[in-house]
Amino acid sequence: MTQTITRNTRGVYVISATPFKEDGTIDMGSLDRLTDFFIEKNVTGITILGMMGEADKLTPEESRAVIDRVIARCGNLPVIVGVSGSGLRNLADLSRYAMDKGVAGVMVTPNRGPAYDDRVESYFHAVAKALPDVPLILQDFPLSTGVPLSARLIRRLSLDIPQLVMLKHEDWPGLTKITAIRDMEKQGDGPRMSILCGNGGLYLPQELARGADGAMTGFAYPEALVRTVELFQQGKQDEAEDFFDAYIPILRHEQQPGFGLAVRKYVLKQRGMIACEETRAPGPRLSVVDRAEVDRLMHRTQLRLEAL
Amino acid sequence: MTQTITRNTRGVYVISATPFKEDGTIDMGSLDRLTDFFIEKNVTGITILGMMGEADKLTPEESRAVIDRVIARCGNLPVIVGVSGSGLRNLADLSRYAMDKGVAGVMVTPNRGPAYDDRVESYFHAVAKALPDVPLILQDFPLSTGVPLSARLIRRLSLDIPQLVMLKHEDWPGLTKITAIRDMEKQGDGPRMSILCGNGGLYLPQELARGADGAMTGFAYPEALVRTVELFQQGKQDEAEDFFDAYIPILRHEQQPGFGLAVRKYVLKQRGMIACEETRAPGPRLSVVDRAEVDRLMHRTQLRLEAL
Amino acid sequence: MTQTITRNTRGVYVISATPFKEDGTIDMGSLDRLTDFFIEKNVTGITILGMMGEADKLTPEESRAVIDRVIARCGNLPVIVGVSGSGLRNLADLSRYAMDKGVAGVMVTPNRGPAYDDRVESYFHAVAKALPDVPLILQDFPLSTGVPLSARLIRRLSLDIPQLVMLKHEDWPGLTKITAIRDMEKQGDGPRMSILCGNGGLYLPQELARGADGAMTGFAYPEALVRTVELFQQGKQDEAEDFFDAYIPILRHEQQPGFGLAVRKYVLKQRGMIACEETRAPGPRLSVVDRAEVDRLMHRTQLRLEAL
Amino acid sequence: MTQTITRNTRGVYVISATPFKEDGTIDMGSLDRLTDFFIEKNVTGITILGMMGEADKLTPEESRAVIDRVIARCGNLPVIVGVSGSGLRNLADLSRYAMDKGVAGVMVTPNRGPAYDDRVESYFHAVAKALPDVPLILQDFPLSTGVPLSARLIRRLSLDIPQLVMLKHEDWPGLTKITAIRDMEKQGDGPRMSILCGNGGLYLPQELARGADGAMTGFAYPEALVRTVELFQQGKQDEAEDFFDAYIPILRHEQQPGFGLAVRKYVLKQRGMIACEETRAPGPRLSVVDRAEVDRLMHRTQLRLEAL
Repeated sequence: MTQTITRNTRGVYVISATPFKEDGTIDMGSLDRLTDFFIEKNVTGITILGMMGEADKLTPEESRAVIDRVIARCGNLPVIVGVSGSGLRNLADLSRYAMDKGVAGVMVTPNRGPAYDDRVESYFHAVAKALPDVPLILQDFPLSTGVPLSARLIRRLSLDIPQLVMLKHEDWPGLTKITAIRDMEKQGDGPRMSILCGNGGLYLPQELARGADGAMTGFAYPEALVRTVELFQQGKQDEAEDFFDAYIPILRHEQQPGFGLAVRKYVLKQRGMIACEETRAPGPRLSVVDRAEVDRLMHRTQLRLEAL
Repeated sequence: MTQTITRNTRGVYVISATPFKEDGTIDMGSLDRLTDFFIEKNVTGITILGMMGEADKLTPEESRAVIDRVIARCGNLPVIVGVSGSGLRNLADLSRYAMDKGVAGVMVTPNRGPAYDDRVESYFHAVAKALPDVPLILQDFPLSTGVPLSARLIRRLSLDIPQLVMLKHEDWPGLTKITAIRDMEKQGDGPRMSILCGNGGLYLPQELARGADGAMTGFAYPEALVRTVELFQQGKQDEAEDFFDAYIPILRHEQQPGFGLAVRKYVLKQRGMIACEETRAPGPRLSVVDRAEVDRLMHRTQLRLEAL
Repeated sequence: MTQTITRNTRGVYVISATPFKEDGTIDMGSLDRLTDFFIEKNVTGITILGMMGEADKLTPEESRAVIDRVIARCGNLPVIVGVSGSGLRNLADLSRYAMDKGVAGVMVTPNRGPAYDDRVESYFHAVAKALPDVPLILQDFPLSTGVPLSARLIRRLSLDIPQLVMLKHEDWPGLTKITAIRDMEKQGDGPRMSILCGNGGLYLPQELARGADGAMTGFAYPEALVRTVELFQQGKQDEAEDFFDAYIPILRHEQQPGFGLAVRKYVLKQRGMIACEETRAPGPRLSVVDRAEVDRLMHRTQLRLEAL
Repeated sequence: MTQTITRNTRGVYVISATPFKEDGTIDMGSLDRLTDFFIEKNVTGITILGMMGEADKLTPEESRAVIDRVIARCGNLPVIVGVSGSGLRNLADLSRYAMDKGVAGVMVTPNRGPAYDDRVESYFHAVAKALPDVPLILQDFPLSTGVPLSARLIRRLSLDIPQLVMLKHEDWPGLTKITAIRDMEKQGDGPRMSILCGNGGLYLPQELARGADGAMTGFAYPEALVRTVELFQQGKQDEAEDFFDAYIPILRHEQQPGFGLAVRKYVLKQRGMIACEETRAPGPRLSVVDRAEVDRLMHRTQLRLEAL
């Protein structure tokens, strides 16, 4: 049984893709290979069933099967599960299933609807009440959810809901938000929260410099995230950033909303991690031109790394 | 076995609520009573698992159970099933299940995402391809989906996808859209489509005057919809509108987005159709003040009807 | 010189349309007639240069000319001026001009952008700082601005900004928001704020029952608003609502977003208040079918009033 | 007098910032220096009064003063003017003023409102009708306007409106849109349109490879855009991309929506082009931490360039 996440969790929790076969069913063999790949790259943990894991297109049975499969493969490596969805009842059922299997925490976005701060606050209190003792991660991703949250609302949730221990930070722009939260934590009495950053890692060095604890994102080169965080934590900021910058051209390509998932799965396929790049419909897919473009960016990334 | 819907379907397809017990499980007894109530009020058909049926908060098993229950209770009355969701695969599975049970058609919204006309068009072609021969209803409800569709895009879909036979019209404002579609149909060669109107019926007399074929909505007084459509089809427009106007004060109250579902379920409970007014979380619920307000509006509606 | 608005302002502040000639210039003669019409209907005050006054399509010179003209015509009747716009500098210039001319206060929406509560809060503090001593009205109209505000944020702004004395309430749904604000005011120490309601008045009787102080909206039958508020303030709620309900069918027609302005201007023209119904481009305009529909609704309203 | 833009215009049209003094007035001296800087960096033309020029916070007088000043400074260098705004009348007035002064074309976004393709189409026809013979640029920037346009709608506008000669492309993701437009142009009979790319240039090499004609954006290192486009047009794609990649880390920082304008103006100030980095309220401003972060990115960009 793995440890659950805490307010001091650090490192890289990679967001796993969900590989499918040509016929649209989940490719469990590729999922194993992908899990092994992540472990081999020394990630701190794996997050499954996130937005980029196409969780909203799976059946409940498929979601549980993914949890079972990854947990079985991971050993002691912590696993986080995205459980966001339209109904609190379904969310709670999936969360309980996952916790029983030994996952380290569950990740929740604000539910869809107008961005009233009190509506969002009530929702997270309801989630916490439905899931006593389950470690919660707040995913703050307004570009996708349509629900912007202020730094002070996040701080209030962190203080009022003891089990809400982590922020998956992917607001954009979001750098000043990290600073604002860390400042409030320093000035106040309550505990800090762990902050892991998303958005592919596009601003990872800046985020780490401002007090983030690591990354939680699915960039198809997770080794870039791992090494950057390591170097940073060793105090080698320049070295970290020199290294990380080599990946930014392809990262900014993968970071295109909607379209980027197809890029990511194609890169994972080209790197041998999954057998088939297909996303479930409706989802993005690459044309011949798109693929050649990604091939070129992969090649250029390789050249750049060799030149470092 | 019931008949499927066609491009000439007329009448009132009432959107059914999904009743829950205090413990949050589906209240099948109340669902039966509600179904009987609709039949007794002479609706043309029943639409289940729509947005106001809280379909997105049910599990697939629950959705199938609702289909089974309503179909069994309905006899020859046609049933339409809302099947919208994030993944085409799940949508197709539920649709096939429903069609096998004998429903009259399935209703689909544009999938979430930016409102590119070509994105929406591709999506409906993909839906149609995944569901050959299944009668499709396009639900056009931008206030909820965030995806506005032009009249000409709807006309093109109607022409290019023979099985797309009906529009659930609830754009707002939407009156000129009905006129635009009917004008294109008159001027062009292809077939018309059936247009049933939503939005609680707030503009029903105007919509019928512009060429709509009836209503598909869940107003807690379905008899108002039924009689208005009947009178209209008998050419008694003034009488229809005099009658319908008596309901507009409470209808405009039920029509408040998000909040309105709680009003509707409360009225249905007060009218004896369902045992418990609860919506599944996260969902609206009424305060003591809210309930007294609805009681007053119900009472005033009653007085007004008596005075007609 | 008129009195400025206060936290206890009550009554009906009608939102004035801006009449244009066929050639698109402002029709000052019609503006006079419209002003006289409002005065004759016993409104408490007039609000000019609101959204439905097409303020964003006027030049600064035209805006100042409208202020001058209406102020000159109004005598002691208080005038409120909408000053919302993209830049604080322009907003402050127009506000100062208007205050110098003797208006009773200025109305401001949250500026466009993501709905972070702290962003909105900062904005109103900046507005207040730029306009010391100017009475401010917060217009809360998320359907148009895209910026939802919670009741507690509005209460906080009311407490922290002494000159923010009034809420133009037109959130939708918004009834529970009025109750929430009035409850916070009763439980806390600070002063109340005046609440005048918009949305054409669609829920005016319910809003008054929940503690609103009147209406600020541009329904083309302002006498309906005036008499309803009067009767309410005399404690005659049933009578008020019986009277008001007669207007709801045409009111719900005028209340269609975007399109409704063309309905309103057409009704004002048919009632003889303005010479030309045109809106400035880009703006809605009525077809022959649309006009006949409005004519019918006007006629039916008349019949209904006669039958009361 | 300069030449107007055409369907074959190529190169780099830099989007100019509008410099302000500490007191908030326009800093005409800095505007001159900035104009000289752009000319010195060999841009093809200058675009003023765009979104990032804070055009919506200027008065009409200020807008005209900016046009006069830049035109006077530019000599034969073509100038494009952003004229988007709420009212067609004001848009036309500003456009005519600018054309009389000798600008090369005017740039227009779709007006705010729901993204119906026919609404957008009507709008551009109305703009064209109001401005006969004026060369028009369609700015396609849904992240800011909220109005997504399909490739086929853009192609239709290009065909039906002869004077609509250029697309400012900044949809995101938007690479496949360029390919789609170029494919339609190859397959059809009508003329091509010029495509210049925005978004800071974040995907400029990819966009050029797909058939774009250059850039129209305000990246604070315009020399990066100029040289990249030049190298590309000489067929040196690898060299172009090697060069451009050096700028991506700071470019992705400047590309943060809303916040990025403060970064851009700070860099321009640090580079000596403008005296004061302030934006007009409400606008972004940098903290001490933010400034240090940008300083670091500027320094790293310098080091990287030296190492090329």
